[in-house]
Amino acid sequence: MAKEENKGITAKKSEDMPEWYSQVCLKAELADYSPVKGTMIIRPYGYAVWQKITDYFNKVLEEKKVKNAYFPLFIPESFFKREAEHAKGFAPEVAWIETKEQGEKYALRPTSETIMYDSYSKWIRSWRDLPLRINQWCNIVRWEVSDCKLFIRSREFLWQEGHCVYEAEGECDNETLMFLGEYKKLCEELLAVPVLAGKKTEKEKFAGAKYTTTIEAFMPDGKALQCGTSHNLGQGFAKAFNIKYLGKDEKEHTPWQSSWGFSTRLIGALVMTHSDDKGLVLPPKIAPTKVVIIPIYKEVDKAAVLKKANEIKNKLKKYSVELDERDEYTPGWKFNEYELKGIPLRIEIGPKDLEKNQVVLVRRDNGEKKAVSIENLDVKVGEMLLDIQNSLFKRASEYLEKSIIKVDNFEQLNNAIKHRKIAFAKFCGSIECEEHIKEKTGGASSRCIPFTQPPVKGECVRCSEAARYWVYFAKSY
Amino acid sequence: MAKEENKGITAKKSEDMPEWYSQVCLKAELADYSPVKGTMIIRPYGYAVWQKITDYFNKVLEEKKVKNAYFPLFIPESFFKREAEHAKGFAPEVAWIETKEQGEKYALRPTSETIMYDSYSKWIRSWRDLPLRINQWCNIVRWEVSDCKLFIRSREFLWQEGHCVYEAEGECDNETLMFLGEYKKLCEELLAVPVLAGKKTEKEKFAGAKYTTTIEAFMPDGKALQCGTSHNLGQGFAKAFNIKYLGKDEKEHTPWQSSWGFSTRLIGALVMTHSDDKGLVLPPKIAPTKVVIIPIYKEVDKAAVLKKANEIKNKLKKYSVELDERDEYTPGWKFNEYELKGIPLRIEIGPKDLEKNQVVLVRRDNGEKKAVSIENLDVKVGEMLLDIQNSLFKRASEYLEKSIIKVDNFEQLNNAIKHRKIAFAKFCGSIECEEHIKEKTGGASSRCIPFTQPPVKGECVRCSEAARYWVYFAKSY
Repeated sequence: MAKEENKGITAKKSEDMPEWYSQVCLKAELADYSPVKGTMIIRPYGYAVWQKITDYFNKVLEEKKVKNAYFPLFIPESFFKREAEHAKGFAPEVAWIETKEQGEKYALRPTSETIMYDSYSKWIRSWRDLPLRINQWCNIVRWEVSDCKLFIRSREFLWQEGHCVYEAEGECDNETLMFLGEYKKLCEELLAVPVLAGKKTEKEKFAGAKYTTTIEAFMPDGKALQCGTSHNLGQGFAKAFNIKYLGKDEKEHTPWQSSWGFSTRLIGALVMTHSDDKGLVLPPKIAPTKVVIIPIYKEVDKAAVLKKANEIKNKLKKYSVELDERDEYTPGWKFNEYELKGIPLRIEIGPKDLEKNQVVLVRRDNGEKKAVSIENLDVKVGEMLLDIQNSLFKRASEYLEKSIIKVDNFEQLNNAIKHRKIAFAKFCGSIECEEHIKEKTGGASSRCIPFTQPPVKGECVRCSEAARYWVYFAKSY
Repeated sequence: MAKEENKGITAKKSEDMPEWYSQVCLKAELADYSPVKGTMIIRPYGYAVWQKITDYFNKVLEEKKVKNAYFPLFIPESFFKREAEHAKGFAPEVAWIETKEQGEKYALRPTSETIMYDSYSKWIRSWRDLPLRINQWCNIVRWEVSDCKLFIRSREFLWQEGHCVYEAEGECDNETLMFLGEYKKLCEELLAVPVLAGKKTEKEKFAGAKYTTTIEAFMPDGKALQCGTSHNLGQGFAKAFNIKYLGKDEKEHTPWQSSWGFSTRLIGALVMTHSDDKGLVLPPKIAPTKVVIIPIYKEVDKAAVLKKANEIKNKLKKYSVELDERDEYTPGWKFNEYELKGIPLRIEIGPKDLEKNQVVLVRRDNGEKKAVSIENLDVKVGEMLLDIQNSLFKRASEYLEKSIIKVDNFEQLNNAIKHRKIAFAKFCGSIECEEHIKEKTGGASSRCIPFTQPPVKGECVRCSEAARYWVYFAKSY
């Protein structure tokens, strides 16, 4: 029997969330720190979660007629400079490579608008080439980060970036929102992470965009986490990169563009939202293994128990089930191990269960134990997995809902932030007011202007100007 | 009607293969040159081919219990230096990034042995953790390239790299060969590209490996193309990175390691092997679209023809079929377009075909035209696609076979190389002889020592030492 080391989480989620979070990621073997400052390693279990996300989203891309491609990691310095706001926005984040060649400096891509749109200007000739919809799955480098927070913030991460070109402004608006809608679905239906959707304020929009839309999740420590953004880029990049098309009217036009992306950061939102002091909790739809079977036996019962356990495994194949037959670990060690790893459902089967033709199901989300007849087990397991998925989403949604505090004045806003809530406030939209709020609250920023607005009457929460819209304010990652 | 520009290939494969190859890649829209020196853009059509390869190989990985992960792009300089041969081998190829931080220089990964094995030394504790099998899909940077040959040679490319750790040497040997075998299958069964499999000589083995195995394809211009390698790394990296495990005997041991990889270069082999003066030719199994339907009609027949064309499209769904209904292009323009893009099978349907309840099938590989009844069309299309796949492989295999010239002496070897063949020669294995051969033949190198050897008697093809084995020599990409 192996020496059973204590691998459990030693920090409490409610007491020291950063330490707890780091331990969950490390001990569930989702990720590891790397010897390269500011970077992380995505371990096989974490990568399996990422692959579930990419598989899901590749289907969405196909449906929406977006094609995958791959552009160079290197971006010439002169490309950045063509769109002034974009260059300014990304300047502090960029890593450059040393070359012994004369001439241009190359950045490692912090985002790929410029290198892609240079090609677009060659590929797009007429209305027949539009809409053009291209996506890229790749690694991204943002060098300003020096302390790595696993999945949430690191010098290198993985993402997808979609880059579309349209004839008309309305089409660009529609699809900017359509892709944001797909992000919301991904978060809520696959990851069971509820999000707030809306527009970013002027201060928070993407460098070079006409406007930015976003989805924002709210973590248990009272911080918002941006989970994906979709930008209407207007015509600024098209003009900077000389993208033109010949219209049906035989005249030259400047097209409209959008870009949209989400990253491995989603895994951070997933982990923080659902996990507990025993370790990771994964909603069944995103879990690489949904069900684990643990046989319990003394030597005399071994053959009979394992035979039945294997039968059950075959019966439950469609749920990505694992049977842990290893003799070198005790059942108790295995319980801890699979709880740590967040497997949604555990099936225990021992000699007494055999007699009663039953198994014991144990839910990871709430610890509920239930003896269940082996008859129709596949249907019952399917129902229970669905219930786990729904319960996790419901619990997270209730938390999000009760975290939103509608405020009437600055004091209330400040108070809400102090209590780690989302302040929902009327706002004038000025950058000055937003900077003031950030300073006075110790870091709260506008998260989004929700698409559905209550009536807006009266003054801005901070100044005496008329409010333009209701805005969510919160601290954030 | 659109102005019909001439997009055809203007160079001949038999006369100017480099220009022909570049035109095929560009005009079929597989790839494009990038404004960043030495790099390329993989366009959606080329990326779709790459995705077919990655999907195929991810299934192999799952079957072989290899898990995907992701390690940082950045490799500390000190890591390279730990394995002396490895550092020396890769020194000329490495790009470094500028940082304003004190301390270490970071390379952009030219391969990931060192950064991965540093983690392995932390993750591996006992025999229970072995075998460890991890794969990574990522971008690779090799800076010495300054002229890009699309897919074949560029400063950045995409690849997979598998890195396994075993308790025993025999296990490591077996799986090194097993993964090479999977590469051979991928090339031959999916891409219809026949390859020679064998060991590399001392001179050509991977920097830091105990030995390297390889698969080599042979291009129509008389150059070999290395399509994948699988290395038994021995225990050198394990010692350099301090990877140890506690055996069942409760003692500490040094494990054995392998690494293996193939890259987007495979697409280059695919394109060169099968394509012709009309453009790309894709074997059906790797073609993102296997069948295209071109309706042919005058206004009066339009509705009837399109109705039937759509019926056929639905019937053939499983073959990834496209129906080109666009009115702004003529059927003739479309024929050229899909020939250029290498769609394996074209279905033409016009009013006369409707009368006869038939369609006309046109094969891309040999241009054969055949009228076929719509009855059981799906079965006939399936058979024809299979026949195209097999014909392409057969043709390429015959070319490979007849390119191999068994030689008895250096003159014959030199002559074979001059005639753009593969010289199959007895060889002593010395680096000196190999360098001599390279110099005297104007660049031929050993490609591999095939696993199945004819009897080896007599002298080396170049010196008077006894020959150790038969070796393939050829010029190469």
